[in-house]
Amino acid sequence: MKRYEALAQDLARSIQSGLLQPGERLPSVRETCAARKISPSTVFRAYHLLETRGLVESRPRSGFYVARGRIRLPPEPEMASRPDGESRAVDVSDLVFQVLRSSMNRDRVPLGSAFPSPMLFPLERLGRSMAKAAIHLDPWSTVDDLTPGQLALRRQIARRYRLDGIDIEAEDIVITNGAMEAMSLSITAVTRPGDAVLVESPCFYITLQILERNGLRAIEVPTHPREGVDLEALAQAIARHAPRACWLMPTFHNPLGSTMPEANKRALATLLAEHGVPLVEDDVYSELHFQPTRPPPVKAYDREGLVLHCGSFSKCLAPGYRIGWVVPGRFRTQVARAKLTSTLNTNVPGQLAIAGYLEGGGYERHLRQLRERLAHQQAQYVAAIAEAFPRETRVTRPMGGYFLWLELPAGTDALTLRQRALAHGMSLAPGPMFSPSRGFGNCLRLNCGHPFDARMADAVATLGRLAAGMA
Amino acid sequence: MKRYEALAQDLARSIQSGLLQPGERLPSVRETCAARKISPSTVFRAYHLLETRGLVESRPRSGFYVARGRIRLPPEPEMASRPDGESRAVDVSDLVFQVLRSSMNRDRVPLGSAFPSPMLFPLERLGRSMAKAAIHLDPWSTVDDLTPGQLALRRQIARRYRLDGIDIEAEDIVITNGAMEAMSLSITAVTRPGDAVLVESPCFYITLQILERNGLRAIEVPTHPREGVDLEALAQAIARHAPRACWLMPTFHNPLGSTMPEANKRALATLLAEHGVPLVEDDVYSELHFQPTRPPPVKAYDREGLVLHCGSFSKCLAPGYRIGWVVPGRFRTQVARAKLTSTLNTNVPGQLAIAGYLEGGGYERHLRQLRERLAHQQAQYVAAIAEAFPRETRVTRPMGGYFLWLELPAGTDALTLRQRALAHGMSLAPGPMFSPSRGFGNCLRLNCGHPFDARMADAVATLGRLAAGMA
Repeated sequence: MKRYEALAQDLARSIQSGLLQPGERLPSVRETCAARKISPSTVFRAYHLLETRGLVESRPRSGFYVARGRIRLPPEPEMASRPDGESRAVDVSDLVFQVLRSSMNRDRVPLGSAFPSPMLFPLERLGRSMAKAAIHLDPWSTVDDLTPGQLALRRQIARRYRLDGIDIEAEDIVITNGAMEAMSLSITAVTRPGDAVLVESPCFYITLQILERNGLRAIEVPTHPREGVDLEALAQAIARHAPRACWLMPTFHNPLGSTMPEANKRALATLLAEHGVPLVEDDVYSELHFQPTRPPPVKAYDREGLVLHCGSFSKCLAPGYRIGWVVPGRFRTQVARAKLTSTLNTNVPGQLAIAGYLEGGGYERHLRQLRERLAHQQAQYVAAIAEAFPRETRVTRPMGGYFLWLELPAGTDALTLRQRALAHGMSLAPGPMFSPSRGFGNCLRLNCGHPFDARMADAVATLGRLAAGMA
Repeated sequence: MKRYEALAQDLARSIQSGLLQPGERLPSVRETCAARKISPSTVFRAYHLLETRGLVESRPRSGFYVARGRIRLPPEPEMASRPDGESRAVDVSDLVFQVLRSSMNRDRVPLGSAFPSPMLFPLERLGRSMAKAAIHLDPWSTVDDLTPGQLALRRQIARRYRLDGIDIEAEDIVITNGAMEAMSLSITAVTRPGDAVLVESPCFYITLQILERNGLRAIEVPTHPREGVDLEALAQAIARHAPRACWLMPTFHNPLGSTMPEANKRALATLLAEHGVPLVEDDVYSELHFQPTRPPPVKAYDREGLVLHCGSFSKCLAPGYRIGWVVPGRFRTQVARAKLTSTLNTNVPGQLAIAGYLEGGGYERHLRQLRERLAHQQAQYVAAIAEAFPRETRVTRPMGGYFLWLELPAGTDALTLRQRALAHGMSLAPGPMFSPSRGFGNCLRLNCGHPFDARMADAVATLGRLAAGMA
């Protein structure tokens, strides 16, 4: 963690715990510099981050103050999950498809949706890049540039890895139809039906559905809502079950929002190497970080080629284009072959459109704006939840992405709440979708990737009232 | 078979067998009308078809003559294959990938390629449709129009089925990443690993690779190079093996070019219904027919929803766009779910681009031109083969598509020939790629989807010389 992040976190906790009261002035920049032996710019960065998150207000020529009038924010969940550690066949699909059907409806308030608002993306500029790519398409590129995909795009993706200090070349990358295909190909490349796979608890329902479709067994590993998977428990599960693979989301986890500390990611890579266990790393949200730099993936510490690192443009640039990729490490041949014999290739104009957009510049500016908006929206949703939901409700504060994870008061049944919310025109993603053992019965994943407008404010208020009525 | 087709076929056989000699006048239109009790327009149609195939020349104000100076065309293969009928695990991928690698090289003469020339397609006009779709993309369409795919495109596809008298609605269709995904999803929807699947002998190597990847067993069924799979043998194999599914290509088979007669297609549908066996119907070439109407699919006779009919725009309109579809019949839910949990969705701008192109008209004209060119090219390749290859070589005359199947003189090893051809800069697809039992050792699939230019003429001549040197 960077110094300014550590400072921001300390101050956020002081504010949330009431040590610093609404309206109270933050320590002056000069004082803080002296006390912490840090530069003024670091302090400003921390204060601006807190401002973005709605915890702090700046007053011209006066300084920074704890946001006034803001009611106390709900506590974060603090306990790691405690799954039973058994290996089990997965059978979540009926529930998940039922929930998905209800969220694929434009008229519903998309609190249960897995997608951010499509209005957050430069679809028109991307469309112009697509127009250029499609009209000037080299006909032969449709024939001889099959898997692993268009070189221009793979070069751009490799360049972004290297900007982060990760040594990936264009030839290490296989382009896919979105990250979902990347992960689906990856897990089939390293397992056979009947094998056991370690997953976080909770974990993204699509992960569970892919395991189910491939006849794989899931072992849920205790996972902390802020720091991600519990490494010690993971090591024990490896020793006990000898799983064929791990499938984790170490950065901005869906649904928890957790991010493994860098030290844990490094230790995880070592652990995997010791046991020769491959990791399917789902890393589709890391571009949506609220800190200045992107958290490194576990792949950054992978010396053995055991990590199959899966990324996508769907959540940060180009929804609907279905362009993702995987860096499969030592499993490159298997993955490329599986791709060639399942979808052959990825749509060529789409690949060229994104490559063209990335070459043209402007991606960084788009990402900066997107991150700021998502961070701002998260603060708005958390504040609204604080007002509307029962006091015992706990809410995560992810440092990136657009999901909040809510622990409702014990005994609140999220599946029932979902039914009631549906009657009020909003979709919800209840906790049991995210667990092969159908745990998390009092939990919800809430999408804060949509602007917090009047309709959304109404919806969150209504949802809070419904939850309060059930507590 | 239509009357004019029957007439054309009779005349073609007379020409090929030498009954009608080069330069000889065909029976006059009047005589033929009287002899066959058919209309003059039917006779003209037959003569024009023969002209397109290079067998006949018209002379102004004189009539139709057997093409002069043309040497005798090689005989067609006449024997159905005779596989051993055993169920076996599939293990072709290493050979296939080796061959594919050598054909994905722009500098090689693409005799072994599976793709027609990309110059045959209206990629620029399609690009303009793509430009329009991408620039005016409704952002929400990227979120809520997931599988089964864009309605506008599904409507256009359904319309084309109905033009052929097949009762398919938009909601019966699932859009996929090309036909390969359609077939891959279809076969996994109706089988479990270890199940046996009936396939033609020979059959498309990608079919075999998908079976291999999914741990399925293949049973090869005798197949005739002109009339497709042998129904009696198929019925026996169903009785003997109780296969979980059939996977066939009843129209313009790859690699044979065979098309099942309509009566056989109807009988096949009845047979499947009797035994409750699903059919994955690979129908990606049927738009490339040389007769005036498209041969109906087996799906046209499917009353039980047992046929999963797979189509694509890749071979007839939009290579590289990766847009295909499946009409999964009673397996719609399973296929749609498999799609949602493997690639989620198909690229949205590409779907809209093709829908827009189809709405705009011009597709029929493009198809007419494409069919004429392919028919003409086929005649050119066959004539060149006749000149260059050993006399005993047999060559198919498919009524659509762009593949020729060559039976070289007994003892000619196609795998060796492939190596020698590679040294001369051309790719080849040798027979053993198309068979889980590695049969067809003296056979080749030859791509005639590329214009027969000087380079191609050279290549075919060289290949014929190499084959002659091995006979």
